[in-house]
Amino acid sequence: MHRIDGLPDHVTIYEVGPRDGLQNEAAILPVDVKAEFVERLVDAGLTTIETTSFVHPTWVPQLADASDLLTRLERRPGIRYPVLVPNERGLDRALEHGVTEIAIFGSATETFAQRNLNRTVDSQFEMFAPVVSRALESGVRVRAYVSMCFGDPWEGPVPIARVVEVGMRLLDLGCFELSLGDTIGVGTPGHARALIESFPCGPGPLAVHFHDTYGQALANTLEALRCGVTVVDAAAGGIGGCPYAESATGNLATEDLVWMLHGLGIETGVDLGSLVDTSSWLARRLGRPSPSSVVRALSKEP
Amino acid sequence: MHRIDGLPDHVTIYEVGPRDGLQNEAAILPVDVKAEFVERLVDAGLTTIETTSFVHPTWVPQLADASDLLTRLERRPGIRYPVLVPNERGLDRALEHGVTEIAIFGSATETFAQRNLNRTVDSQFEMFAPVVSRALESGVRVRAYVSMCFGDPWEGPVPIARVVEVGMRLLDLGCFELSLGDTIGVGTPGHARALIESFPCGPGPLAVHFHDTYGQALANTLEALRCGVTVVDAAAGGIGGCPYAESATGNLATEDLVWMLHGLGIETGVDLGSLVDTSSWLARRLGRPSPSSVVRALSKEP
Repeated sequence: MHRIDGLPDHVTIYEVGPRDGLQNEAAILPVDVKAEFVERLVDAGLTTIETTSFVHPTWVPQLADASDLLTRLERRPGIRYPVLVPNERGLDRALEHGVTEIAIFGSATETFAQRNLNRTVDSQFEMFAPVVSRALESGVRVRAYVSMCFGDPWEGPVPIARVVEVGMRLLDLGCFELSLGDTIGVGTPGHARALIESFPCGPGPLAVHFHDTYGQALANTLEALRCGVTVVDAAAGGIGGCPYAESATGNLATEDLVWMLHGLGIETGVDLGSLVDTSSWLARRLGRPSPSSVVRALSKEP
Repeated sequence: MHRIDGLPDHVTIYEVGPRDGLQNEAAILPVDVKAEFVERLVDAGLTTIETTSFVHPTWVPQLADASDLLTRLERRPGIRYPVLVPNERGLDRALEHGVTEIAIFGSATETFAQRNLNRTVDSQFEMFAPVVSRALESGVRVRAYVSMCFGDPWEGPVPIARVVEVGMRLLDLGCFELSLGDTIGVGTPGHARALIESFPCGPGPLAVHFHDTYGQALANTLEALRCGVTVVDAAAGGIGGCPYAESATGNLATEDLVWMLHGLGIETGVDLGSLVDTSSWLARRLGRPSPSSVVRALSKEP
């Protein structure tokens, strides 16, 4: 264990495997497997687990069982189970299930806003405003994602000023946290630093959400920690890559993140062995090997 | 392109694919494919390529054709083609081929020294001393590897003081560069910093050699650059993992390194597209997909 001056003592891992991870996996899992996945993540020491999404099943068939999953799941005290909510209808359903934290999913680029939300960047706020205000009135906290913060497959590099503008408008709506997403994984550490340092709010409300498509996620995370960020999104086993490529990597793997953090003497509360067992078990259910380097190295099975 | 203050303007990539990479691949390649591999690496802009090894073929069957390869290879001016040399017999063969730079391979731990060199840590210097002095007399530069600098599969964590002692003794023999190897890939960025900062010689003669077994190689490299290191070992396509695991990762992939460096505005001289094409071509020859994230993301073939 070797610390680096200026890094935080504790990092909150915001686990996105059950939502962002599974929604990009081809194999549709039964609801009881998903419930067991979430339970096992809690048993492994994760305290914040984005559990599912109330997006329309046409768009994300994997998460069509959101209501069923929330009904089955025994939510434990002290554990946060945020749910992604695309609109007011989704909020209604989340409230029916007693959800106490939601996430909304914005875009920094016009093309992705159009494709993912069928909106302009500007008009997405009209959609989010009533969701956030009604959530807050109901005592529900709201996290906001900003997607395509680094590059966009259609538009190329995304101007930092644009990301900051979108992000600050989401915070101004009343969101408590902003997750800066490198949706296509092209970012590098200097870009992460420049983006974080450009936010007038400072790093306090910022989280980072890196995809490992180009192998950069962990180096970017290290730089983000150096900038004062203490909330990092990751998916157990690194699930969520392109469902059609055997070994494509998706989200930063929680295990790879934990290996680095613990090596740096940064507390996470996670039991790595237990998490690796969970991801190995899930990989069997998904029918493909985990893309996480740590899972591959430590897993007892081939 | 987003720079970070304090990082170097230029990094020398010490390409180890043809030696450290191939020696750990199961598929034995014909010598003309190896020659083409080296030529293509040069065409892609790499200027330092560890080409082969004069270790006994019993131990490394893949590199039994070292003499044949060096005979075929048209060595171009301005390009360095170092060769690994285990002992004086190896040095003789290297000299016969007009090699101008060699590398020797030491160990920081007793167990690995015993298993890899059949020596104690202390007695390895007796083996290296005549190799280095005779090389220097012949105008041949000598790089020294120190393996197992972070952890050892039998001994666990390796004390930094032990690594520094071994490394300084190798430099004192007359080696111009010391490559600090995380042979089993367990190191984390704070450990890399602590190790580099413990060398009384400063970072000038130090290179880093990370394996990506636990996904840490690029984050460790970023930290090493911050400590003043400017020479980084990497293998095209990330080849060299355990030959029996389909997607096991070995050396840090040169492509993943180049992606980060170029994103940071650090010059390497490498043309990434050309390098990716080379690694895709080699992956077909090796019969397994490249473990490099960048190669998988950018390769035109599935």
